[in-house]
Amino acid sequence: MSKFVYFFGNNDTDGKSSMKDLLGGKGANLAEMANLGIPVPPGFTITTEVCVLYLKNKKYSEEITRQVNEAIEKLEKVNNKKLGDPKDPLLVSVRSGARVSMPGMMDTVLNLGLTDISVEGVAKKVNDERFAYDCYRRFIAMFGDVVLGIEFRKFDALIGDKKKELKVKSDTDLTAKDLKELAEKFKEVIKLETGIEFPQDPRIQLQMAIDAVFDSWNNSRAIKYREINNIADNWGTAVNVQTMVYGNMGETSGTGVAFTRNPSTGEKRFFGEYLLNAQGEDVVAGIRTPNPIQDLGKQIPEAYRQLVDICQTLEAHFRDMQDIEFTIQEGKLYMLQTRTGKRTAAAAVKVARDMLEEALIDKETAVTRIQADQIDQLLHPRINPDAELEVIANGLPASPGAAVGKVVFTAEEAELRAELGEKTILVRGETSPEDIGGMASAQGVLTVRGGMTSHAAVVGRGMGKPCVVGCGEIVIDTKNALFMVNGYTIRENDYLTIDGSTGNVILGEVELIEAELNEDLHAILVWADEIRELGVRTNADNPADAGLARELGAEGIGLCRTEHMFFGEDRIPAVRDMIMAEDEKARKKALKKLLPMQKEDFLGIFRSMEGLPVTVRLLDPPLHEFLPTREELEEKLKEFKAASDLDGVERVNLMLQRVNTLKELNPMLGHRGCRLGITYPEIYTMQVKAIMEAACELVAEGAKVTPEIMIPLVGHVKELAFSKQKVIEMAETVMEEMGIKVDYKIGTMIELPRAVITADKIAAEADFFSFGTNDLTQTTFGFSRDDVGKFIPVYKKEEILENDPFAVLDQEGVGELMKIGIEKGRSVKPDLKMGICGEHGGEPSSIRFAHSIGLNYVSCSPYRVPIARLVAAQSTIEARKK
Amino acid sequence: MSKFVYFFGNNDTDGKSSMKDLLGGKGANLAEMANLGIPVPPGFTITTEVCVLYLKNKKYSEEITRQVNEAIEKLEKVNNKKLGDPKDPLLVSVRSGARVSMPGMMDTVLNLGLTDISVEGVAKKVNDERFAYDCYRRFIAMFGDVVLGIEFRKFDALIGDKKKELKVKSDTDLTAKDLKELAEKFKEVIKLETGIEFPQDPRIQLQMAIDAVFDSWNNSRAIKYREINNIADNWGTAVNVQTMVYGNMGETSGTGVAFTRNPSTGEKRFFGEYLLNAQGEDVVAGIRTPNPIQDLGKQIPEAYRQLVDICQTLEAHFRDMQDIEFTIQEGKLYMLQTRTGKRTAAAAVKVARDMLEEALIDKETAVTRIQADQIDQLLHPRINPDAELEVIANGLPASPGAAVGKVVFTAEEAELRAELGEKTILVRGETSPEDIGGMASAQGVLTVRGGMTSHAAVVGRGMGKPCVVGCGEIVIDTKNALFMVNGYTIRENDYLTIDGSTGNVILGEVELIEAELNEDLHAILVWADEIRELGVRTNADNPADAGLARELGAEGIGLCRTEHMFFGEDRIPAVRDMIMAEDEKARKKALKKLLPMQKEDFLGIFRSMEGLPVTVRLLDPPLHEFLPTREELEEKLKEFKAASDLDGVERVNLMLQRVNTLKELNPMLGHRGCRLGITYPEIYTMQVKAIMEAACELVAEGAKVTPEIMIPLVGHVKELAFSKQKVIEMAETVMEEMGIKVDYKIGTMIELPRAVITADKIAAEADFFSFGTNDLTQTTFGFSRDDVGKFIPVYKKEEILENDPFAVLDQEGVGELMKIGIEKGRSVKPDLKMGICGEHGGEPSSIRFAHSIGLNYVSCSPYRVPIARLVAAQSTIEARKK
Repeated sequence: MSKFVYFFGNNDTDGKSSMKDLLGGKGANLAEMANLGIPVPPGFTITTEVCVLYLKNKKYSEEITRQVNEAIEKLEKVNNKKLGDPKDPLLVSVRSGARVSMPGMMDTVLNLGLTDISVEGVAKKVNDERFAYDCYRRFIAMFGDVVLGIEFRKFDALIGDKKKELKVKSDTDLTAKDLKELAEKFKEVIKLETGIEFPQDPRIQLQMAIDAVFDSWNNSRAIKYREINNIADNWGTAVNVQTMVYGNMGETSGTGVAFTRNPSTGEKRFFGEYLLNAQGEDVVAGIRTPNPIQDLGKQIPEAYRQLVDICQTLEAHFRDMQDIEFTIQEGKLYMLQTRTGKRTAAAAVKVARDMLEEALIDKETAVTRIQADQIDQLLHPRINPDAELEVIANGLPASPGAAVGKVVFTAEEAELRAELGEKTILVRGETSPEDIGGMASAQGVLTVRGGMTSHAAVVGRGMGKPCVVGCGEIVIDTKNALFMVNGYTIRENDYLTIDGSTGNVILGEVELIEAELNEDLHAILVWADEIRELGVRTNADNPADAGLARELGAEGIGLCRTEHMFFGEDRIPAVRDMIMAEDEKARKKALKKLLPMQKEDFLGIFRSMEGLPVTVRLLDPPLHEFLPTREELEEKLKEFKAASDLDGVERVNLMLQRVNTLKELNPMLGHRGCRLGITYPEIYTMQVKAIMEAACELVAEGAKVTPEIMIPLVGHVKELAFSKQKVIEMAETVMEEMGIKVDYKIGTMIELPRAVITADKIAAEADFFSFGTNDLTQTTFGFSRDDVGKFIPVYKKEEILENDPFAVLDQEGVGELMKIGIEKGRSVKPDLKMGICGEHGGEPSSIRFAHSIGLNYVSCSPYRVPIARLVAAQSTIEARKK
Repeated sequence: MSKFVYFFGNNDTDGKSSMKDLLGGKGANLAEMANLGIPVPPGFTITTEVCVLYLKNKKYSEEITRQVNEAIEKLEKVNNKKLGDPKDPLLVSVRSGARVSMPGMMDTVLNLGLTDISVEGVAKKVNDERFAYDCYRRFIAMFGDVVLGIEFRKFDALIGDKKKELKVKSDTDLTAKDLKELAEKFKEVIKLETGIEFPQDPRIQLQMAIDAVFDSWNNSRAIKYREINNIADNWGTAVNVQTMVYGNMGETSGTGVAFTRNPSTGEKRFFGEYLLNAQGEDVVAGIRTPNPIQDLGKQIPEAYRQLVDICQTLEAHFRDMQDIEFTIQEGKLYMLQTRTGKRTAAAAVKVARDMLEEALIDKETAVTRIQADQIDQLLHPRINPDAELEVIANGLPASPGAAVGKVVFTAEEAELRAELGEKTILVRGETSPEDIGGMASAQGVLTVRGGMTSHAAVVGRGMGKPCVVGCGEIVIDTKNALFMVNGYTIRENDYLTIDGSTGNVILGEVELIEAELNEDLHAILVWADEIRELGVRTNADNPADAGLARELGAEGIGLCRTEHMFFGEDRIPAVRDMIMAEDEKARKKALKKLLPMQKEDFLGIFRSMEGLPVTVRLLDPPLHEFLPTREELEEKLKEFKAASDLDGVERVNLMLQRVNTLKELNPMLGHRGCRLGITYPEIYTMQVKAIMEAACELVAEGAKVTPEIMIPLVGHVKELAFSKQKVIEMAETVMEEMGIKVDYKIGTMIELPRAVITADKIAAEADFFSFGTNDLTQTTFGFSRDDVGKFIPVYKKEEILENDPFAVLDQEGVGELMKIGIEKGRSVKPDLKMGICGEHGGEPSSIRFAHSIGLNYVSCSPYRVPIARLVAAQSTIEARKK
């Protein structure tokens, strides 16, 4: 015979905290407190199993009814009161309680058991008619609202009318008579709205309330919430029926909420507030100002001491910070709830570290106590949560953190202002590599177009620069130096705040809270490093980023994009000469100018990484990215013509011609990656020369260098074989000339479906694989990361996609392909080292996936390195548990 | 004990024609002729096995040497002559002969066995000193060239010197003395170049010649040829040593080549030519004009009658047209070679049909006798093979057939000229949908950019319009209405010829041969239809194409692209209104205007197909394709401004704004396909309404209609499910309103790797799959079909890719993905109908692949339908053989 009803309290408790699946979180924890000898008002929990059966059959079996009746009788017995007793009725609360806290379901009905008759009994018993009718009218309204589905404002309106009629302001100004009249009117509303009389039989009241809780599991808000949060529909909710206690029975009564530690800072100090002679809702409503919890020690010392003891007991028992609710009824303390307390990022880190030091938890537990997005909060400035915000638009949250500054519309302007010490927000249609200087100078970047891996997003995250992209509602009017959005007109120099963690664009100068990378976090991450199996590298293109990433714990560079080195002011002329070259000879001449600069880059990066592996990706983007745009050139042409500068005209005309020749309809699928290296081998050769000369020089100085040369965009093993041959030739030449031996590797990006599907063949030529999940997502979905902004929002709204696949790795499609690639690759080389170097390398669910499919490392932007370290450790812990 | 040497002739023949692997093609057929009692000069074949052993060990086993010697002795015996006999030496030819004819290997050494001494014997024996020394000097030069590797021109130069010295013009003016002197000088050259004396021992001559044949298997040209043609390196070549016969021994001697039927027309009439008193090379050299073969009947009647008999015997035996070589020595006929005769397309078709009717071959054989590219020749005009061509450039052969016309640079101009009855070649940087009218009006299209599946190529093939694309050397100067290429300047109105089968661009007006779709081809294709299992549909977007394709044998439409219907002059304004619409309401209004036009389209197409299935793909391209380009609009803006047309300015400005909003960086991966249908459901809904109303009307008239509605660019099953829902709703509404039931299907394109990898999930929602191999190739490789022209040529040159994957399906990558998709799809729906509707559907190797992986049909442009029918049948025959 199944047990459907679990009693708790009065030393007669059936459940315990581990039974959350059956009893729900609230019910299980009430039982657990009762087991610990903590005073809880007695009650019983009807299990989630009953919910599932009821929803299926829309009725209860005899056995269930029997067990519920038995529990009611027991509850009457331990309280020595009977439901519906005209003189001293048993009053109860009815609450829902699923496995996890779930908004959208029916919440609470208080004072259940009051009737037209028993309310009089209560009035006499407590000698307070006003108290009794206040309870009664509240009960009728709550019942009408949550059980019968009548809008609460209809009851509220009647209270308003009454106060208007009496010309009073506060509910407390209403007398017992007024409240009694209101109760009558409320019953009329119920009759009018539902056609039924307000039930005067407490058993019927109770049954209707229980049914309503169960039915609320399937209301549309609850279903939606489950869908979004991946909660199974067949879990069901439990119902808790509990004896009422009252904090509003005079100055020895009270009620409060508290945390066992400070949920904001993590400080180990009892934290909370209370009100004397009040009900729970009064604390929350904010009409009276509650007192800090410590004051309770002076007012009701015995109850306070007991409360402090209980909190210690609960923390020691649950080994985590608790969030509690209590009521003191005429000096006697009752605990109404305990649950794990929500906390800020800073508090999470501090509490985890403190509890480890208090030997309450072990390292693994400490590491799992921090959520990845909390680390993110700690690493970026954020908006003061108390600030009032005028949000004028919303884009994609592309690079976390908040930024405040004056609006500018060009990268040059941002750079200029930075020199003057001004803070700016750079607003652009989209950014291009030429904007990098301006992006670095601005506090934050806002773009009209582009997705989570658009140029602005990738560069923003790389720089740790707050960034909101794809804010399509914005219309920029460059001529008048302003932008319009949703009826607002924002001009250059107007203050703007952007929140790269939410995508919000906010009017004016909002107060920010600065980032903090504190000792506590450091300690947690060191423990994470001890646990995790997955390596964590960084994507870094210059010594500064590399150094930062090392400080943040990177174990190497997983992706050094050499193209970013080409945009420097000192390089771009040589790069353009190279592109404008008519033949191989001229191209080689231009490349020769670039060689020493590239070599300097690598010297710096290798030095920063002090012997850790550095994966250098050879040139990837199409050459036209390094030329001015056609529009810019046409502008230039006009200028030169106006100035009668014939040389200039010719030069620009030549460049225009080249821009036209290089023009591509779909540059993402065009002449880039190893395709460049195969058609113009001299480019890659120069890069390899620079890498190897730098490496040899450092080795000669006694340093350790571990270069890993990576060929991008390989789809066919012959592309890799061809490129590899050239790399080896140059590497061997350099080493021979310099008389130095460097241990170098040659590997490839796996970022095209064809590379995945032929990974066995490609593995034969590769020392390592690095999954380029940005490009792989583009080609697997056929989505241009720069253009998805036009339909991804609709896709999310229509629930076609849960996430932007450029932000969260698509495990079903892209991930499935990766598995094929890994399997094929390892079928040829079982120890082939494999990693991810796409933007997903810093996203928690993608990091977990990377670990689960057997990758060796993830590589992410410097500011995501701590997150990756944490999540990698959590993933290991989860895997061990399985 | 292995048999290494096979004797033939003189009723003592060891081999037969089925032993081609061992004896090579030539040796096996010589043996077969001998077996048939046909006179061949006796000889022997050293097997390919010996070649393999020799190349491995660089020497011969004792057994091989023994067998060769035995064969030589037998040859001496049957000829009653001895090698090196000073008075009457045995003279032989030595020829290579692999399984398949293979250029690049050593070819032939004639007159082997002559020495300084035996040449005198021959002179006396035949009483013709000049003959003997002519043979000798030829032998020395051939031996020097092919055995010793001395450039032939060194010998030729000496003959030239001699003629200059003697002031004569022709070799025949040289006397016996002159030739003897030349022979001496040739021997000196050999000594000088190689350091060895010209060998005077015929056994050594023979051994050296045999070694040289074997060694030539591994010379670089032969290796290259094998690589390109997928011939195994370990096949080896055989060596044929054969008694010399001479056609130049007077007026009862002669030599000739012939075909058993006319290789040009296929007519069943003995066809060939001969010369009396001549050697084989004289017939080929063209110094004397040979006589038609029939004349031989008058000159040497007995030999002629015998020759005709032999030809009949050979044809009956080999059951195919033969290409033969013969020599008559003093009245006696010798057959030197027989092999399957090469033939023109027309001949191939006629011969196959005739032979079937003559009961020489069966249907399956007839069908395998035609090559796919021969059908292509028959369906398109081509350049007269005798014409002299001045090829000025070469592009990609995008749409077969040749075209001649005057150069024009705009589609409008091409249309204008067509109205005036002028033939034009439209030369464009690239074409866009707006050029379609001009393309239709021009004779052919030539573009600077674009690959095998660029717009010009696809539309060209669809129209059956000759087209050369990606001719990157061309520089168009629109301002001066000319283009420059490789030093040529071609102006508007200059005549130009393009060959879409070779990619050649030819100066001037070249003579063309018209296409012929004759009865013979029709007969063959009907037999093919009886054999094949693979369905053949067509890609057609209008009733005319649909009708043409039906005539060419299409069994349905596999791809009807609705976007092409949007470009009509009467539609484009409504299409643009739809795109310019500010909201759904305005969009619906514009769509309402399009509805009746779309319905007319479908009525026409359904009527043309008379009940055959018609797969209609809902709108696929991004909306910006339907708007003018930014450049065009800016031009317009100037005009309106100049004319102070404020309304016009505003209208154009609005459109410019929309063009900017819709602009995409990678439109191929952008807002298109079902992404459009999901963000603007009203577009698809209108199309479905048009399809279903048309279908219902026809069904009401008593016609049969089988619409298959296809959702493009699905990557996630939810995209399909969402779109399908909308389709069903509209379809049911229409059918209900019209009171008609139509049997319709809803399926999807599989053209994204994600669709492939989740094909099991997608199958659950699909009635059919159509593999869109164009897009699948783009995303699998990460190649933009419009941009590959920049590197594919280098890839082919560097042998990274064998073929342009947009022309020939990449079986290793894209094909492997298709297999996964098929397997996953059928794992859920075993009978799921699947086809190909990319451009590969008309390419022979891709059609074979489609059949081998279990697709149900291919769909291709109308002019490729006959090819697909043929190849599908051949594929079935091949599969049955396995």
